[in-house]
Amino acid sequence: MILAFDVFGTVVDWHAGISREVEAIKTGVNGDAFALAWRAGYQPAMRRVKSGELAWTRIDELHRMILDSILPQFGMDDLTESQKQHLNKAWHRLDPWPDVLSGLARLKSKFTLCTLSNGNLGLLTNMAKRAGLPWDCVLSAEVFRAYKPDPATYLGVAGVFDVEPASVMLVAAHQDDLAAARACGLQTAYIERPGEFGPNQPKDVSADPANTLHARDFLQLADQLGC
Amino acid sequence: MILAFDVFGTVVDWHAGISREVEAIKTGVNGDAFALAWRAGYQPAMRRVKSGELAWTRIDELHRMILDSILPQFGMDDLTESQKQHLNKAWHRLDPWPDVLSGLARLKSKFTLCTLSNGNLGLLTNMAKRAGLPWDCVLSAEVFRAYKPDPATYLGVAGVFDVEPASVMLVAAHQDDLAAARACGLQTAYIERPGEFGPNQPKDVSADPANTLHARDFLQLADQLGC
Repeated sequence: MILAFDVFGTVVDWHAGISREVEAIKTGVNGDAFALAWRAGYQPAMRRVKSGELAWTRIDELHRMILDSILPQFGMDDLTESQKQHLNKAWHRLDPWPDVLSGLARLKSKFTLCTLSNGNLGLLTNMAKRAGLPWDCVLSAEVFRAYKPDPATYLGVAGVFDVEPASVMLVAAHQDDLAAARACGLQTAYIERPGEFGPNQPKDVSADPANTLHARDFLQLADQLGC
Repeated sequence: MILAFDVFGTVVDWHAGISREVEAIKTGVNGDAFALAWRAGYQPAMRRVKSGELAWTRIDELHRMILDSILPQFGMDDLTESQKQHLNKAWHRLDPWPDVLSGLARLKSKFTLCTLSNGNLGLLTNMAKRAGLPWDCVLSAEVFRAYKPDPATYLGVAGVFDVEPASVMLVAAHQDDLAAARACGLQTAYIERPGEFGPNQPKDVSADPANTLHARDFLQLADQLGC
């Protein structure tokens, strides 16, 4: 079986990483609010690509467009261009949740592990190299020229490995992502990440019986999969 | 710097791997001749894609077309469909040259390592998992929908990592591949693989001063790059 992992929120803690980096670059800024604002621009930006308003655009560029739009409201329009470029790549420098490295090592002994993220290939590769994420293959919306939840992405993973969709399991902390994968015939594993949006915005992590598996974290997923 | 590796012949020994597998499946067949015949069909098959005669086709499928065309001349048209499918995936089960794993481990400590092969993503991923090749990212003609030596492949690597072409070095055992990369502005490293075509077909491994580096193997390349 192929395990395909959503990345932002499922594998890495974007809220803590972005908060930390923005607070380091600008004293006194509210990192929590900044991280939430940046992330909130993500789905609308991808919708502009999906609708055809924007040509195919990688997440690095979408992140930069959103960044430029929120800097003024945080009193940060005085950042230099090089500071903006550095901050934009904070998404390449996110840390994994504490269970991830040991969980992936166990899962890798039995399954092929790939990413299936809307993040671009360079971002995902830089992140993996820095954090030590042991992917067998980095797959991305960039490979399929379509963003999740487009069926081309989920079916694309099965196509790459020349297997039936039911031989791929999407692992994600987001029910909408999993529902779209399930509609394509993939197996699905929900991972609880109650802290995804930071300490001030608790997340509903209740189980959906439609998923194949529901696990607290990657270690419990490895238990469930007999690794 | 990004190091992008050609794979067949440069990283893995296709001649020995294919010879071994075909001899295991059919007693008495000449594995050396079979491997050379299968590989000889590779460039012509890709040219049919490049010319538009064939729609975009992955190497797994091209390998199968070539296999079907050569089986009769080796008295092997009695293989079952499942034997043919298994043999076709011998390209997923090739072993690396003896210097590869230790060389890549050293190079990985300093550089981002990716493949740049005409092999498809699934093939390259299965090969890497079996052989323990520690790629940071698996890139392929399949990502760029173009076969080497199309400039879209070499420039595609630079694009993925958002760097200038001169910040990418192609590592390959084939001067034509390196020349095409150089024409796109990449750095190039030639690796001698005198046994690529087996013991009966020696290969010219003389140096071309146009390359940035010329190394006997990946260990010497690591020396030259200070790893």
